[in-house]
Amino acid sequence: MTDLDLSELDDRTRELDAAHVFHSWSAQAGLNPLVIAGGAGSRVWDHAGRSWLDFSSQLVNTNIGHQHPAVIAAIHEQADLLTTVAPATANLARGEAAKRITDRAPAGFNKVFFTNGGADANENAIRMARLFTGRDKILSTYRSYHGNTGAAVVATGDWRRIPNEYARGHVHFFGPWLYRSEFWATTPEQESERALRHLERVIQSEGPSSIAAILIETIPGTAGVLIPPPGYLAGVREIADRYGILIITDEVMCGFGRAGRWFAFEGYDLVPDLITFAKGVNSGYVPAGGVIISDAIAATWDTAVFPGGLTYSGHPLAMAAIVGALDAMSSEGIVENAARVGREAIGPGLEELFAKHDIIGEVRGEGVFWALELVADRETREPVSAAVIGRIKGALVERGLLPFVAENRIHVVPPCTVTDDEVAEALATYDEVLSLPLVE
Amino acid sequence: MTDLDLSELDDRTRELDAAHVFHSWSAQAGLNPLVIAGGAGSRVWDHAGRSWLDFSSQLVNTNIGHQHPAVIAAIHEQADLLTTVAPATANLARGEAAKRITDRAPAGFNKVFFTNGGADANENAIRMARLFTGRDKILSTYRSYHGNTGAAVVATGDWRRIPNEYARGHVHFFGPWLYRSEFWATTPEQESERALRHLERVIQSEGPSSIAAILIETIPGTAGVLIPPPGYLAGVREIADRYGILIITDEVMCGFGRAGRWFAFEGYDLVPDLITFAKGVNSGYVPAGGVIISDAIAATWDTAVFPGGLTYSGHPLAMAAIVGALDAMSSEGIVENAARVGREAIGPGLEELFAKHDIIGEVRGEGVFWALELVADRETREPVSAAVIGRIKGALVERGLLPFVAENRIHVVPPCTVTDDEVAEALATYDEVLSLPLVE
Ligand SMILES: Cc1ncc(COP(=O)(O)O)c(C=O)c1O
Ligand SMILES: Cc1ncc(COP(=O)(O)O)c(C=O)c1O
Repeated sequence: MTDLDLSELDDRTRELDAAHVFHSWSAQAGLNPLVIAGGAGSRVWDHAGRSWLDFSSQLVNTNIGHQHPAVIAAIHEQADLLTTVAPATANLARGEAAKRITDRAPAGFNKVFFTNGGADANENAIRMARLFTGRDKILSTYRSYHGNTGAAVVATGDWRRIPNEYARGHVHFFGPWLYRSEFWATTPEQESERALRHLERVIQSEGPSSIAAILIETIPGTAGVLIPPPGYLAGVREIADRYGILIITDEVMCGFGRAGRWFAFEGYDLVPDLITFAKGVNSGYVPAGGVIISDAIAATWDTAVFPGGLTYSGHPLAMAAIVGALDAMSSEGIVENAARVGREAIGPGLEELFAKHDIIGEVRGEGVFWALELVADRETREPVSAAVIGRIKGALVERGLLPFVAENRIHVVPPCTVTDDEVAEALATYDEVLSLPLVE
Repeated sequence: MTDLDLSELDDRTRELDAAHVFHSWSAQAGLNPLVIAGGAGSRVWDHAGRSWLDFSSQLVNTNIGHQHPAVIAAIHEQADLLTTVAPATANLARGEAAKRITDRAPAGFNKVFFTNGGADANENAIRMARLFTGRDKILSTYRSYHGNTGAAVVATGDWRRIPNEYARGHVHFFGPWLYRSEFWATTPEQESERALRHLERVIQSEGPSSIAAILIETIPGTAGVLIPPPGYLAGVREIADRYGILIITDEVMCGFGRAGRWFAFEGYDLVPDLITFAKGVNSGYVPAGGVIISDAIAATWDTAVFPGGLTYSGHPLAMAAIVGALDAMSSEGIVENAARVGREAIGPGLEELFAKHDIIGEVRGEGVFWALELVADRETREPVSAAVIGRIKGALVERGLLPFVAENRIHVVPPCTVTDDEVAEALATYDEVLSLPLVE
């Protein structure tokens, strides 16, 4: 490849991609994907050296930023020892990774089952909940994403479930979101109360003794960074306890620093029974995910065989990346940085944009986990059209910012390592683009 | 950790494992897993330097052996460029990996959808088959394993399906296996004919127009390396064509060199419609799997949105490991070695053991993919007890051989790079152990 000059490498990348790569969640014709060849911290670039400020963290997974030297070093070191080993063996990197995860979890969570990503983490948490309770049904919200495999995709609430409904035992309910309330509420307290009443009514109507677990993103992510209103999650815990139902918190996107805490649920007076994770645990440098299991549930399989598993459960290279990432996040105060930057820079900055741009209907978030709800009309709250959001996305990319766009929203989701200067740069770019004539 | 001496590292590994790691497909109490700290080629070792000849290839995935320098170098190189990037971008390592895979596939297979492993490869192939045909049902064999997620585990035929039946649209049939025929057959030809008739009768009884695909391991692996009898797979193709049913070949275990060919189906006059892979594609050095999609099926999503995806689809580090592994396998003749060693060393060697040890009821396999069927009685073909197989496993490990044991069988599944000397060493160990007084 050294005989091609650098922009020829970009061309070759595009050609190979068009010829041979089938892309996730897309129509394949006419894709014109950005070539990404390298990155560091909050930036990525193509071969020719064009660069972007990454305020997407890719799929909201590079919590530690791109190519953090400590994680790269951990990968190099483990690569020289042993990349892969069967799950039935014992491996030091795996044990060290599991310990670092349980050390950060609440008391009473001592075991980790490792998977390759978020979907299979949810699959296995669902399996555990069903076997532990002897019940079938899994409740989850309409505004959620839990992964693309058999059960995870049917637990998902958004459009991606519809063509994939081949699993039984899933029931959906509405979570709280005052801005587009399903409960005719007008205050956060009312939204919370009514959402809880709705959940309890669904449980009663489904038959409490048929329900194994409520699977819930602590802060629904892809659905729009829907910060739960006061009392909601504590109320879910109360209801679940009343009916002997488990709570699985899906912390795949909101966990490991994203919300400015190790786990998002720490902010909400909720201790779940099972915690699923992926993404931020090692920023996706090597695919990994898993389930953190409370002791009572783990004990179910002390003597009974757990009927789940996968070839790469506890993969040494992935585990080394977890150890490297979590150690660096602790020693460098990266989670604290996410909390501070959210409070001092992103939050106030987005509020300023809100004051200035009528197209912003709502700003919400915490840590490095924010959304701008873009509307055609602040009064009616009608979402902007796909054409408008497409123009915004294009204009941001043109100006060197890689955005995360979902439906009518821009999610502001930089790495937890983002600096105040980078936030200022991004805010200026959002400001400039939202000032353009966007509707024609 | 440098303040601990090496055997203390083994102790620490065992302690962390017992305290924090939840293991696949196991009861968790009283596990005493082997510590594996490193490896090279066909060998692995613990921290203290105790070593084993790896005739398991872990979970039959290290086709290129442990720590192949070319693959390790590819991982190092990519780790310094970019470990992770979102699936919606274009990345050179991903395109190069996809090209190397489609180059080895039959004509008319030009696109690859990448996943993290075998289970999600099957999930997505099943999704594609259903959407392409507009039909629901997936047929698969009772003697099969397809992964642990929602649809894959219900497609699975073995005991692992039973506690996990939460997916609809799965129907099972019996595949051929003369040694334990389900069809009262006495010759391979008869077994093949009758298995085909059985399959066709199941299809007719289920309603052909309700069936999207037949999902089949070309050579059922975990179920016992069940080499298909003459004409069977060609017959499956014929029947499938007659009813407009697709064929998905699961080449997760049997593909990428294991059977002495790039794809096992090349040996059987069968061209499938979708091919799933994982394991051998990069020997699991970084988790990866995927679906190779025939052009007609891929075209379905030229303009329609494909409703499947995952955060780490086409993960650069995993892709670099694919490029490194497939290039080395080609340039070093590793697939040819697997075929030769099977024909010249493993096959004849196991036949000698068969001649000598009555406990061996059948020897079958090709390439580096073999099984010894162990029986209490050659006449009745009664499998040996769990206690006997446990003693055999223990005795092999004690003598420095890491075996793959499933039910009453020893699977002889070294890397494709295995040497004649290593085969001789393993054969001598099997011989010695099978000569012990095993039943008490
Ligand atoms: C909350 C949540 N759960 C699960 C998943 C699925 O994770 P993966 O794509 O690694 O399977 C995602 C991915 O975006 C997610 O955001
Ligand atoms: C034939 C076959 N298919 C699928 C799988 C599942 O692969 P994974 O464990 O990577 O999900 C396996 C694993 O052993 C397998 O042997």
